[in-house]
Amino acid sequence: MVTPLALLQESLGALVDTREASLEEARADRSGHSAPGRPLAVVHAERVEHVQETLRIATATRTPVVVRGAGTGLAGAANAGTGEIVLSTRRMTAIREVRPDDLLAVVEPGILNAELNAALAAHGLWWPPDPASRDISTVGGNIATGAGGLLCAKYGVVREAVLGVDLVLADGRLLHLGHRSVKGVTGLDLTSLVIGSEGTLGVVVGATLKLRRLVPGETCTVTATFPGVRSAAAASAAVTAAGVQPAIMELMDAASLTAVHALLALPAPTPGAAQLTIQTDGPAAGVEAETIAGILRAHDGVTIVSRDRDEGERLLAVRRSMHAAMAALGTTLIEDVSVPRSAMPAMFDEIARIEREYGLTIPTVAHAGDGNLHPNFIFDGPETPPNVWAAADELFRAAIALGGTLTGEHGIGVLKRRWLAAELGDDQWELQRRIAAVFDPLGILNPGKVFDPDA
Amino acid sequence: MVTPLALLQESLGALVDTREASLEEARADRSGHSAPGRPLAVVHAERVEHVQETLRIATATRTPVVVRGAGTGLAGAANAGTGEIVLSTRRMTAIREVRPDDLLAVVEPGILNAELNAALAAHGLWWPPDPASRDISTVGGNIATGAGGLLCAKYGVVREAVLGVDLVLADGRLLHLGHRSVKGVTGLDLTSLVIGSEGTLGVVVGATLKLRRLVPGETCTVTATFPGVRSAAAASAAVTAAGVQPAIMELMDAASLTAVHALLALPAPTPGAAQLTIQTDGPAAGVEAETIAGILRAHDGVTIVSRDRDEGERLLAVRRSMHAAMAALGTTLIEDVSVPRSAMPAMFDEIARIEREYGLTIPTVAHAGDGNLHPNFIFDGPETPPNVWAAADELFRAAIALGGTLTGEHGIGVLKRRWLAAELGDDQWELQRRIAAVFDPLGILNPGKVFDPDA
Ligand SMILES: Cc1cc2nc3c(=O)[nH]c(=O)nc-3n(C[C@H](O)[C@H](O)[C@H](O)COP(=O)(O)OP(=O)(O)OC[C@H]3O[C@@H](n4cnc5c(N)ncnc54)[C@H](O)[C@@H]3O)c2cc1C
Ligand SMILES: Cc1cc2nc3c(=O)[nH]c(=O)nc-3n(C[C@H](O)[C@H](O)[C@H](O)COP(=O)(O)OP(=O)(O)OC[C@H]3O[C@@H](n4cnc5c(N)ncnc54)[C@H](O)[C@@H]3O)c2cc1C
Repeated sequence: MVTPLALLQESLGALVDTREASLEEARADRSGHSAPGRPLAVVHAERVEHVQETLRIATATRTPVVVRGAGTGLAGAANAGTGEIVLSTRRMTAIREVRPDDLLAVVEPGILNAELNAALAAHGLWWPPDPASRDISTVGGNIATGAGGLLCAKYGVVREAVLGVDLVLADGRLLHLGHRSVKGVTGLDLTSLVIGSEGTLGVVVGATLKLRRLVPGETCTVTATFPGVRSAAAASAAVTAAGVQPAIMELMDAASLTAVHALLALPAPTPGAAQLTIQTDGPAAGVEAETIAGILRAHDGVTIVSRDRDEGERLLAVRRSMHAAMAALGTTLIEDVSVPRSAMPAMFDEIARIEREYGLTIPTVAHAGDGNLHPNFIFDGPETPPNVWAAADELFRAAIALGGTLTGEHGIGVLKRRWLAAELGDDQWELQRRIAAVFDPLGILNPGKVFDPDA
Repeated sequence: MVTPLALLQESLGALVDTREASLEEARADRSGHSAPGRPLAVVHAERVEHVQETLRIATATRTPVVVRGAGTGLAGAANAGTGEIVLSTRRMTAIREVRPDDLLAVVEPGILNAELNAALAAHGLWWPPDPASRDISTVGGNIATGAGGLLCAKYGVVREAVLGVDLVLADGRLLHLGHRSVKGVTGLDLTSLVIGSEGTLGVVVGATLKLRRLVPGETCTVTATFPGVRSAAAASAAVTAAGVQPAIMELMDAASLTAVHALLALPAPTPGAAQLTIQTDGPAAGVEAETIAGILRAHDGVTIVSRDRDEGERLLAVRRSMHAAMAALGTTLIEDVSVPRSAMPAMFDEIARIEREYGLTIPTVAHAGDGNLHPNFIFDGPETPPNVWAAADELFRAAIALGGTLTGEHGIGVLKRRWLAAELGDDQWELQRRIAAVFDPLGILNPGKVFDPDA
C-alpha cells in the first residue's frame, strides 16, 4: 500500500517536511502541552492548491490533518501527534488587496497580525483584533480561534472584523463564504461559524477583513494602584458603568504585579496592591482620561495620567510582560474565563476562595473592559498536576455559574474539551458535533480537538 | 387518526386560533406574496412551554411549522399555507432583565423593537438595530432575519447586537446558545448561525441582547440635492472615503423622490434630481455635519445643514415615507441588494441599464453608508409578472458580480430562494441545507423556505 506520506511527497515534493525538528515543533503550541507521538510530516502550503491537494490525499487515505498557523495557541488546538499530517498555512502570506474606500482587505491566512497591520498603516488603516501575540500569530490562526485582544472592548474581536473566508473542506473542495459588502443575510452565516472553529471545519485559505481607519488624535494612559484586587475590579466596573469607553483597560492582581516587577527589575510593589492600566484614544481622549481618573480616585486608586504616547507604551509594557513573567516562574497553565463585567468582583472572590482551598497562588490579569480574566496556574515539570486541574475545574464552573464562559478568547483545543459539555449542555454539545460532521464527515480535521466524547 | 389540530386543541386549548381571519392573515407577510392554501391553525404561544408543546406535536405528527413574529417580513418567509401550523411568538413580550452595568437585556421574542427601545430609554440605553419597521416588527423577527436599519453603518446590524438566544428545536428541546459575557469562543458560534436563519433552525424564545448607552449630544441633519443619482452616489462614497462616519446616510433617486413628494403633497422636485439625507450624532456631530456638507458641495450637491432635532426628523420623514409612496403606486416588489460601498455608482448604472432594457422605472433608495440598495418594482395585481422577475434576476446577478449579495437585510424566504445557489455556489448551498437538517432532521421547520431544491 502507498502510504499517505509517499503520496504527499510524490505530489507536493519539497513542500513536505519530515525533519525531526519540524515534527517535534509541531507537537506543541504555546500552552506547554504536547501531543503524544510525532506527526507524519509538515506540509508547508504556499498556495490554495497545495492545501486542496493535501486534503484530497488525506481524505483518500483517511489520514488526520492538523492545520497550523504560527503555533502560538494556548489550548493545544494545533498540536499534532502520531499519524497526523500537519498542514501549515504559515507561508501563505500575501496581501491580495487593500481597499481604503471599502475599508476591506483580502489576505492569505499565514500573514502575521502585526505584519498585516504594518502594511495597512501605510494606507491609514488597521485590522482591530490585537491579541497580545499579534507579533507572532497569524491572521488565519486569529480567525480560527476567534481571537480577542487588549483593544477589543472598544474595537471588537475577530468575530466583528471578518466579512468572508475562503475555506477548503476536508475533501479538498474550495468554498467562498460571506461577501465583500458590509451587509448580507444570504442563507446561514457560515463565516461566523468558521470563526473560532479551531481547525475542525476546514482550512481558511483566504479572508476578507473588515478594517477601520487609524484613530486620529492623542492616546492618554491612566494607571492606578489599589489596595487590593477587589477594589481595582470595582473601580473598573465603575468606569464601564459611567459610560466611558476606554480603548484598553487591563487589570493586574498583586501576584501578577509582583512577578512582572521582579522580571523587569522594577521596585517591588506594595504588598497586596493591584493595578489598572487604562488607555483612551480618539478626539475625546484627554477628557475621557480625566473622567476616568476621577472615578478611579473616588475608588481609592492612586492615579497618574499621562498624555505621552511613549510613556503610555512603557506603562503598558508592564502588562505585556505578564506572559514572560509567568514563564520565568515555572510551567504555566493560562486560563481564560470570561464573565459579565458586573460579575468581575465576584469572580475575583471565587479565585481567592480557590487559592485558599487548594493552597495555590493564582496570579490573574484581566481585560477588565470586557470581563475576560486570565488566571495563571504555575507548576514544575511539563504535566499539569491533578490538583491544578481540580482548581481549574472549580474556576470554570464558577465562571459558568456567573453567566460567563470557560474561554473568552483562547478556545477549547485539547485542554478544555473535558468541560465543553458542562457549558453547552449535552444536547448542544451533540448538535455542534453533528454540525462539524457536515463539514468533515470522515472526521479527519483536527480529530479529538474541541469535541472529544472521551475527554 | 387524531389530527394535529385536535392534538393542539386538546393540549393548548384557547391558544389555538382557527378563525378564518387569523388563518387568512397568516398566509402573507408585507411582501405582498401569499402562500397557497390556508394553514391549519395559529398557535399564540404565551410561554416557552407552549412553543415546546406545539413542536412536540408537530414532530409526532410530521406537521410543518411556520414561526411568525409580526409578519412584517418582505421575503415571504413567514407565509403559511395548506397543512401548516403557524406558531406565533407575538404574545411573548416580557422584558425579563435590563442590566445597565453589563449593557445587556434579556427579552422574549414577541416584543416590538420600538416597545423595547422605549423601555430601554428609561435606563439611558438602546438596542441599535433599527429597521424602518421598528414600530411594527418583533425582536424575534429581527433576529431571525438578521435585520439591518438606517443606523447600522455606524451602530451595527442585529448580528453585532445579540449575545445569546434560547432556541427550541423542532423536537421541542430547549437549548441555550451563547452567554452573558461579551466575549466567548466556546465551541461553534451557534448564536450567529441562528441570526438570519428565517425560522429554519428553531424557534427563538428568548434573547440576550447587547445594548448601547444612548448617544449624548446633538443630532445634525444634512440634506443635499444632486443633478442625478450617480453624482449622489459618488458624493456618499466620498463621505465614507473621507473617514467621517455618519449615523444615517440615505439616498433617494429621482423616481423615489418624486413619488414621496407626491404622497406627502410637497412641491415636485427638479426632474432627475436625487437626494442624500445624512445625520451625524455624538459629541462631534456639529463638526462632522460641516465636514460632510463641504464634501457634498464639492460634489455639486445643493446642501442644507440643520441642527434642530425635530427638523431633522421632518427631513428624514421623506425617506421614511418611501414604503407608503410605493404602495400608493401599485403592488411593490422591494429588492434588497448590497454591494461594497465603492461599487454603488456602478450598481446604479446597472439599474439604469435594466430600466432601459426592460422598459421599467425602478425607484431606488439606498442605505448609502453600507452599500445596501432597495430597488422597487411596481406592477398591477397580486402576482409579480415574468418580466419583473427577469429584471430582478439581472439585478441580483449584477450585485453578486460586483462582490455583493442578493439580500442585505430582508432575507431569502420564498421570493429569493431561486437565486440562493447562484450566490452560494452549489457546494455551499448543499452544505447549508445539511446544517439546517442537523437542527431539523424531519424538515418540519419552515419547509420550502430559503432552501428549496425545486425553486
Ligand atoms: C504571549 C501570548 C499572548 C497571547 N495573547 C492572546 C490574546 O491576547 N488574545 C487571544 O485571543 N489569544 C492570545 N494568545 C493565543 C494565540 O496567540 C491566539 O490563539 C492566536 O490566534 C493563534 O494564532 P496562530 O497563528 O498561532 O494559530 P495556531 O496556534 O497555529 O492554531 C490555533 C488554532 O487555529 C487553527 N488554525 C490555524 N490556522 C488555521 C487556518 N488557516 N485554517 C483553519 N484553522 C487554522 C489550528 O488548527 C488551531 O486549532 C496568546 C498567545 C501567546 C503565546
Ligand atoms: C415598512 C417596512 C420597512 C422595513 N424596513 C426594514 C429595514 O429597514 N431593515 C430590515 O432588515 N427589514 C425591514 N423590513 C422587513 C421586516 O420588518 C424585517 O424583516 C423584520 O425583522 C421582520 O420582523 P417580524 O417580527 O415582522 O417577523 P416576521 O415577518 O413575522 O418573520 C420573518 C422571519 O422570521 C422568522 N421568525 C419570526 N419570529 C421568529 C422567532 N421567534 N423564532 C424563529 N424565527 C422567527 C419567521 O419564520 C420568518 O422566517 C421592513 C418591512 C416593512 C413592512
